[in-house]
Formats: sequence, structure tokens, C-alpha cells
Amino acid sequence: MNPSHPAAQRLRIVLVGTQHPGNMGSAARAMKTMGLARLVLVAPEKRPNEESYALAAGADDVLGDAVICQTLAEAVADCRMVLGCTARSRRVQLEELMPREAAARAVAQAGAGAEVALVFGRERTGLTNDELQLCHASVHIPANPDYSSLNLAAAVQVLSYELRLALLDAASGEGNADADAAAAQEDPRELPASHAELEGFFAQLADTLDAIDFHKGRAPESAMRKLRRLYLRAGLDVREVRILRGILADAQRMAMLAGSKR
Amino acid sequence: MNPSHPAAQRLRIVLVGTQHPGNMGSAARAMKTMGLARLVLVAPEKRPNEESYALAAGADDVLGDAVICQTLAEAVADCRMVLGCTARSRRVQLEELMPREAAARAVAQAGAGAEVALVFGRERTGLTNDELQLCHASVHIPANPDYSSLNLAAAVQVLSYELRLALLDAASGEGNADADAAAAQEDPRELPASHAELEGFFAQLADTLDAIDFHKGRAPESAMRKLRRLYLRAGLDVREVRILRGILADAQRMAMLAGSKR
Repeated sequence: MNPSHPAAQRLRIVLVGTQHPGNMGSAARAMKTMGLARLVLVAPEKRPNEESYALAAGADDVLGDAVICQTLAEAVADCRMVLGCTARSRRVQLEELMPREAAARAVAQAGAGAEVALVFGRERTGLTNDELQLCHASVHIPANPDYSSLNLAAAVQVLSYELRLALLDAASGEGNADADAAAAQEDPRELPASHAELEGFFAQLADTLDAIDFHKGRAPESAMRKLRRLYLRAGLDVREVRILRGILADAQRMAMLAGSKR
Repeated sequence: MNPSHPAAQRLRIVLVGTQHPGNMGSAARAMKTMGLARLVLVAPEKRPNEESYALAAGADDVLGDAVICQTLAEAVADCRMVLGCTARSRRVQLEELMPREAAARAVAQAGAGAEVALVFGRERTGLTNDELQLCHASVHIPANPDYSSLNLAAAVQVLSYELRLALLDAASGEGNADADAAAAQEDPRELPASHAELEGFFAQLADTLDAIDFHKGRAPESAMRKLRRLYLRAGLDVREVRILRGILADAQRMAMLAGSKR
């Protein structure tokens, strides 16, 4: 999984008229956790300050590199796709996308070489109608209608998360056989048990149930069928089969000891 | 789109050992924006305070209704699915789910009547190995490997968002409820075992391994850890737990007979 897919370099997060400097820091942090680095601030009420940097935590580089513009038009001048996040845009007739669909389209455009902006409005009042007119579509996070007040950083987090998933999807579609092979080597999972190994285990399980008198006169088929289903569903590996067969062997040994002395 | 799908009532967010009271408020807000209401606090360093309520904003009801427990085991005792959010669990071999897959499974279980917990650890140190042992699977937000420090509320926001999407999906699928009900009647799947039922089984399994002298001087932890992983992965239902405990009881009986006559 490539963390810095080239398309990520063409995605920018634009915050318009941010009122609380802390939110610019939290947004920078949310972006960086998802591998995004390009932040644009349009006419923030205050410039990033100490509080912003405190909340940015390790994402002070993203905040420090933020570009400051006077208008949204300036911030997205070179963009071929501009998506505006809104609580719900009844006022302007824009196509309304869910975050997942928006991220997929944004990454597809960025992957094809286009500059793409995701735009977030003011904490209290969102984007103006004029600002929404600059957007190609709106993005709506499907929040609880009775309480839809995601804070700004939370909204940036959700959209950045969807962008990251879309970027990882795009990267994995690009023939990452090498990465997969490396990952497999890092975590040498035990081999799944073979059919023969599983059947050996099931045969010993059936013998053990007899030996410890589990069925007590009932037909054995029903319990064995349920146990087979359980263990097949679990996808046992060879080590697990070894452990389970060890347990069965010990139970059989106890039954033999008990029986020989009964 | 039904905002209060009944399955949402069976989903709880559990915060373990939270260090900063503000984060409990931000988490409550994140939950409520996504239509979730049940918050459980396990041994928080401080009880929710003024700062918590300030950050909860309009979600003070969620915070005020939060249940406080002393241990994670207590918090999830009645849960049939427990998912632990981790930065990445190299230490404990748990199945690792992406948030989307985790949310789909959680909502499917909750829709079938099971109580489900999503568990978030301490800000700095996450969940302990013992706490992860109580989980059926881990959930990993695929963050930027170079900067994966989502804050607690951001992680709760991402998971709550995925839960909401899954709940909306489930609600929109209920046009086909009749077909589903018919299918369910054909194969009346048993309820998944609860946390307490599973722990009862594991305790008896440990006792049985001792009784049949499975360990033979080796430390018991390693085998038990592997067995826990296997059975948690299998997603045992109540009937399967009953069968397995029956087998253990018979093996214990044999060991007692063998021992009394050794």
C-alpha cells in the first residue's frame, strides 16, 4: 500500500473563513493522519497561531506549508474539480454526493492529472451561495438529522478518510504484487490445514467423543456435523490442528486410564 | 432513511482508561452526529467534567447517560461481538478488520439481536494485551504509516461514520425484509455466544487442559492464547459453546476417574 500515491499530491483541502484558529490545526492533523498534505486557507478570521499549532500536534508541517488566499476563486483557480462540503445545500441546485462517491471521483480526477479541491465552509454558516456556485458538486456527510453538527475537523477527518481509502484502492489496482509479497513475508501466517489434515482431525475427534462417552446413547452424527461446521468455518491452520489433536490425544489417554480401571 | 434503526440501540462505544476528560465529550459529540447514543466509560482517569461537557456541545445527553464501569470485562459482559480499535495489533494475533468491514459485521450482529461493543483504548497506550484478548477482532483505521496519530475523538468519528453508513444500508435493505425473514426461518441460526458465555467456556477449557495434563510442564499461556484466537475467530454460537463444554465436561470426568485410580 503506497502511502504517497501521486494522486494525493493533486488533492487539496480548502478551509474558507475559518473562525477558530484551533480548527485549522485539528484539520491539519486529520489530513496528515490520512496522508494528505496540501492545505489552503481562504481568508481565515485569524492567521494560524499558537493554539493552531498545539492542536496540529505532529502535523505542524502541513499547517506551516498552508497557502493563504483571499478568495475561494483564487484558491481553486487551477482546479478541474471543486467539491463543496455542506450540511445540505437546499439553496443552490448542485449535484449532491455522498463522501464515498465524492472521494472516488476526486481520486479518479487526480489520478488522471487534474487538480482537485475539497472545500469546507465557516464553522457556523458554511459556504455562501456565491462560493457554492464555484463548486462542481456538493458533498454531504449523512449525519443524524436531529444533530448534524460535526465540527470542522471531524468533517475534514471523514472526508480525508474516504480520500485515503480511494487512494489505497487506486494504488492496489496498480499491480502491487511486490508489496503483497513483502507483506506476506513480514507475517508468516501458518499454512491452512490441508483437507487430509482436517479429516485426520475429525476422525480423531469422533474417536475421542466415543472414548469419553460424549454421546450417551444419542446418535453421534448430529454433534459431529455441528463440530465439523464450526471447525471448517474457523479455517484452521496446521499449528491449530496440531494443538487440537494434542488435546484429543490427552483426553483419549485419560479415558483409557479411566476405562482400564473402571 | 431511518435515523434510529433499532440495531443502533444495540451498538455501544466503549472508551477504556481515557486520560483527557475533553476527549469523552468530543467522542460523545462524534457519536451523536452519527446517531449513536450508548457510551460506556471504563475506569476513566477523571470523571466527565466541565471540559467534557463543553466539548460534547449538544451531545451532553449522550455524555450524561454514559455508563461507568471498572473493567472492560464488565463493560462487555453481555456482548456477543466485541471489536477493539488498535493502531495495529502486532502483539496479539487477532483478525484485523478495516472499519467498513467491522461496521458491516457489527450492524449485522446488532440487527440479529446481539449486543455489540466497539472498544477504544487509552490516548497514549491503547488497549493492553489482556484487553485485546477480550476482543473477537481488531479494527484498524488505515492511517498514514508515517503519522498515524488520529486522536481518540477522530477515531470514534470514523468508526461511528462507518456504523451509520451500515445502519442506513440495513434500513434501506428492509424493503426486502420478507425475503430475509423467509431465509432466516429456513436456517434458524443460533445466537452468537455472549462474552460471558465465551469466558465461561475458556475457563473450563483451561481447567480441562490442566486436568488432562496437556501442558506437561510447558507454560499454559501460549496454547490458551492460540485456542482463544481460534474460537473467537470462529464466532461460536450458543449451541456450539454448549457442545464444546459438554465435551470438556466428559474429558474432565475421565481425568478424574483416571486420577482417582492412578
